[in-house]
Amino acid sequence: MLPSKPLAPPAAFKTIAIVGKYMAGIAESLSEVAAFLVASGHDVVFEAATAQTVGLSNAVAMTPAEIGKHADVAIVLGGDGTMLGIARQLAPYNVPLIGINQGRLGFMTDISQEGMIPLLADMLEGKLESEQRALLEGSVLRNGEMIFHALAFNDVVVSRGATSGMAELQVEVDGRFMYNQRSDGLIVSTPTGSTAYALSAGGPLLHPSLSGIVLVPIAPHALSNRPIVVPDSSSIVIEIMGGRDISVNFDMQSLASLQHHDRIVVRRSAHTITFLHPQGWSYYHTLREKLHWNEYPSVAGQLK
Amino acid sequence: MLPSKPLAPPAAFKTIAIVGKYMAGIAESLSEVAAFLVASGHDVVFEAATAQTVGLSNAVAMTPAEIGKHADVAIVLGGDGTMLGIARQLAPYNVPLIGINQGRLGFMTDISQEGMIPLLADMLEGKLESEQRALLEGSVLRNGEMIFHALAFNDVVVSRGATSGMAELQVEVDGRFMYNQRSDGLIVSTPTGSTAYALSAGGPLLHPSLSGIVLVPIAPHALSNRPIVVPDSSSIVIEIMGGRDISVNFDMQSLASLQHHDRIVVRRSAHTITFLHPQGWSYYHTLREKLHWNEYPSVAGQLK
Amino acid sequence: MLPSKPLAPPAAFKTIAIVGKYMAGIAESLSEVAAFLVASGHDVVFEAATAQTVGLSNAVAMTPAEIGKHADVAIVLGGDGTMLGIARQLAPYNVPLIGINQGRLGFMTDISQEGMIPLLADMLEGKLESEQRALLEGSVLRNGEMIFHALAFNDVVVSRGATSGMAELQVEVDGRFMYNQRSDGLIVSTPTGSTAYALSAGGPLLHPSLSGIVLVPIAPHALSNRPIVVPDSSSIVIEIMGGRDISVNFDMQSLASLQHHDRIVVRRSAHTITFLHPQGWSYYHTLREKLHWNEYPSVAGQLK
Amino acid sequence: MLPSKPLAPPAAFKTIAIVGKYMAGIAESLSEVAAFLVASGHDVVFEAATAQTVGLSNAVAMTPAEIGKHADVAIVLGGDGTMLGIARQLAPYNVPLIGINQGRLGFMTDISQEGMIPLLADMLEGKLESEQRALLEGSVLRNGEMIFHALAFNDVVVSRGATSGMAELQVEVDGRFMYNQRSDGLIVSTPTGSTAYALSAGGPLLHPSLSGIVLVPIAPHALSNRPIVVPDSSSIVIEIMGGRDISVNFDMQSLASLQHHDRIVVRRSAHTITFLHPQGWSYYHTLREKLHWNEYPSVAGQLK
Repeated sequence: MLPSKPLAPPAAFKTIAIVGKYMAGIAESLSEVAAFLVASGHDVVFEAATAQTVGLSNAVAMTPAEIGKHADVAIVLGGDGTMLGIARQLAPYNVPLIGINQGRLGFMTDISQEGMIPLLADMLEGKLESEQRALLEGSVLRNGEMIFHALAFNDVVVSRGATSGMAELQVEVDGRFMYNQRSDGLIVSTPTGSTAYALSAGGPLLHPSLSGIVLVPIAPHALSNRPIVVPDSSSIVIEIMGGRDISVNFDMQSLASLQHHDRIVVRRSAHTITFLHPQGWSYYHTLREKLHWNEYPSVAGQLK
Repeated sequence: MLPSKPLAPPAAFKTIAIVGKYMAGIAESLSEVAAFLVASGHDVVFEAATAQTVGLSNAVAMTPAEIGKHADVAIVLGGDGTMLGIARQLAPYNVPLIGINQGRLGFMTDISQEGMIPLLADMLEGKLESEQRALLEGSVLRNGEMIFHALAFNDVVVSRGATSGMAELQVEVDGRFMYNQRSDGLIVSTPTGSTAYALSAGGPLLHPSLSGIVLVPIAPHALSNRPIVVPDSSSIVIEIMGGRDISVNFDMQSLASLQHHDRIVVRRSAHTITFLHPQGWSYYHTLREKLHWNEYPSVAGQLK
Repeated sequence: MLPSKPLAPPAAFKTIAIVGKYMAGIAESLSEVAAFLVASGHDVVFEAATAQTVGLSNAVAMTPAEIGKHADVAIVLGGDGTMLGIARQLAPYNVPLIGINQGRLGFMTDISQEGMIPLLADMLEGKLESEQRALLEGSVLRNGEMIFHALAFNDVVVSRGATSGMAELQVEVDGRFMYNQRSDGLIVSTPTGSTAYALSAGGPLLHPSLSGIVLVPIAPHALSNRPIVVPDSSSIVIEIMGGRDISVNFDMQSLASLQHHDRIVVRRSAHTITFLHPQGWSYYHTLREKLHWNEYPSVAGQLK
Repeated sequence: MLPSKPLAPPAAFKTIAIVGKYMAGIAESLSEVAAFLVASGHDVVFEAATAQTVGLSNAVAMTPAEIGKHADVAIVLGGDGTMLGIARQLAPYNVPLIGINQGRLGFMTDISQEGMIPLLADMLEGKLESEQRALLEGSVLRNGEMIFHALAFNDVVVSRGATSGMAELQVEVDGRFMYNQRSDGLIVSTPTGSTAYALSAGGPLLHPSLSGIVLVPIAPHALSNRPIVVPDSSSIVIEIMGGRDISVNFDMQSLASLQHHDRIVVRRSAHTITFLHPQGWSYYHTLREKLHWNEYPSVAGQLK
């Protein structure tokens, strides 16, 4: 299992990268964070596209790879999509991430813009909780040759074409045949992705520290083709057996026009992603907020 | 994660216990197995109720606890219910189990009666696969005092009374508040239990080697109270906040008339249960059979 | 199909009954409504329990049956439970109902307390929409003899006992055998009840003007025992085939300890319930509010 | 509601059309049916593609439209797909249909090939049950102009593109705004279609004689966007608000590349389809067979 709270706080955060999504009001937020960091004695760098977008011509700009090599932590301002994109790019470098949302609470960007500065101050002094998230790596094999390879932080999704009939997929796990599934497609999701597309398709929630991967069929022909959770040490192979215009999607990167007998191999990546949270952070708090779960019992134990 | 295939075969099976459920034709099956074992040089003992039921007056009869202390393996003839009962009783003694069904394939009793003798012969020579299953232990606390304690191999279920309104349950995991849930009840299930009641209530399948526990709400008032899978290192506390005639059920053992603020604490037991299977056994094969999953692709890749 | 908007407005509302649930602040609301009605020249009567609860010693108090005979409309203040109870009692008398919630929007009590007076003024002048709702009548037959009979506005629910195994129910519709179902129970629901327990158990929403009844199994053993909607002209018979401590519940009235081969017969009642709403009322507006459905498209057609 | 059993048997079946799907062994089946019909004094015609496929060069061949005008009944040999296609084409002509499956029981082709001749003999003498099925008609409006129009017997499906994000759909029913839905798509299904794609996507079963249409969202972003059943007098408008590569599918006919603000209008068609069944036919029998529902109660009321 992934450790959820290391005893020792992370090493000093000397160089801090700032990543932002272009959206209304983002420039002010980025400037506010940068000014605070500089004033606190940190070295600040900007992700290159972020710097360009907000017109920070004299800022130090770095590509994600450069951030990976030089930064001690990355602060991400935006939504879960922004976090998803940069997290996957930084995964090979093990740079921890702090997520600040610009309005609506995110599953990953769980610090709100208001009050972010005091929280950041605390966190950079080591008052924080650290959490590691798994990600997937997937390959597409055609006639035994790898034609595509990518990481996915949320999910790997195999889908039928929009105007064609069902896909037919043969699934093997650890070399053992599972089933031939006829459906709109199949989602292979990390715990992080279990609150995204997999949830819409009927999948369960997976706690981020669960060492599991969930397979969620999309509109399966057999009503008993239920979601199944396997250990994240599993090797999952999906072979295209039938259907037209089938594509595979790794988070946001698509490979279209798969052919019959193409094989998609998915397993857990050797990389992990580290999220930093303020002290007292709770995953369940985020779920309650996002999913409108009840916080309070009914009055006096009487059910309404 | 639980190891699914230890490299070394189990030690020699000197003493073998036989456990059977009373059902039509069981006496012949028991005798056939016993005769084979004796002829192969094994010491055979019978579970006491089994011996009595089938009128084996001169057989060596043992209680489950005695079997636990003396037997090297137990062979169980019956259905999944039979297996469930004896497995929980033998759990503290780490006696591995072999399950033989009497007609309908079971999730746990996966050897069919026809052809059982040659399979048993192979398995007792070490041609087998060994698999470990987790089980739960649960306590009920009232005013801080433990009033009930039991093991569960499938699930711990908190349920409302039949003619009363919804139960209101406060759930905490590892000391963190999850939610207040209003529902017919809540199932806390092992991977083994994920194919039983939890599945009927909308839960996902969990592979037996997944180190996870799934919480499945039964007819929850909030549509977003979806099943959630947590690591099996979790400590789960369910506090009764509202509702009448609430009971808790550990596999088949019930404690009725829970009171408001009773707390049910569930965690993984330190014991595990070892199942022995014939070589080439596949969990997915059992799922396919039991859940009517497709084995064959459509003809020539054409979807019907 | 039930007509949803009759062309002619209802006849003059001479005598108006007021029904309220005992809850904080209800006395003021009741008084406010009564004062307005008297000032507008209506005759006002109070449901007896309501009058007593709020200490209206000199008010005209009537039983539900008397209200049924004398009132032209009943105004209900409270929650959906309050409405459910009085609506079933008034069903034989065809008294239309207006529902005012005391805080949280209800599916049936869809007028909010603030601003209720001007809305009532408009409605009593005929600026309103009228809607008719179906209800069920059910009987329990034992050895061919009727031992129980009741109306249900939401649902008729057959449930297993809390600490017993699954119920086994044989279902017939219009004399045709449907299936033997093993489950926690079966919900037979009106469109009105489709937003209540049936929804929690996985049932679909039924528009109130649909001439249908939905059967929703609760945690059925067979995954393909899906909810099924039948015409509301159907006669539904549920026979208890197995299980212990089975009960049947008509909205809030329970009959416990059913025996094997007891038969529950459910069909649409000859009575209907008329709800009056302010002009421009929309059922979908209530659904959107209660179920947190999206009202606004994403900004500029871009999906987040 | 649609009548399910008219008192009077259909008029004499003078001219009978035969329609078949090209598949192994179909020629023999077609010949067997034709020979029987000719011997019984009926005029036999073949659907043109069927005649050509099986090489019946001297048979009377007719287009579906000609069959519609001249035939008194059509006998369809094949699967549900075959039935679906011809039924939609014959819908404007009100020619009743008899469905014979070629192997696997269909929802619509519910007579098995073995024993078909005696059953046909009985049916053609009036020993039959007649059942009417609703179908949908849909139009696509672009800038107020109709650019597509088609009938659908199963469903009208709006779907996102395979490699694009969620579709965003605004739904109105009878001029009332329902919601803005973000999803993979939306299925608008007849009762006949409720056992097809709609079922895979989580929809309820609708009895064929229910006067209802069900809207089933596919993997909706909001967990509370549950299937909803509306009266079949409803006019349903789906407007494309966001998403790319969106298409609409009427049974098997697709219109791709919808644009934002295209509107799909769906309502019940004025046509109906009449199915003829052998006496004693039961829709529930077909459901039980196709969905593996339990037919028999557990032994002696004991639940396994």
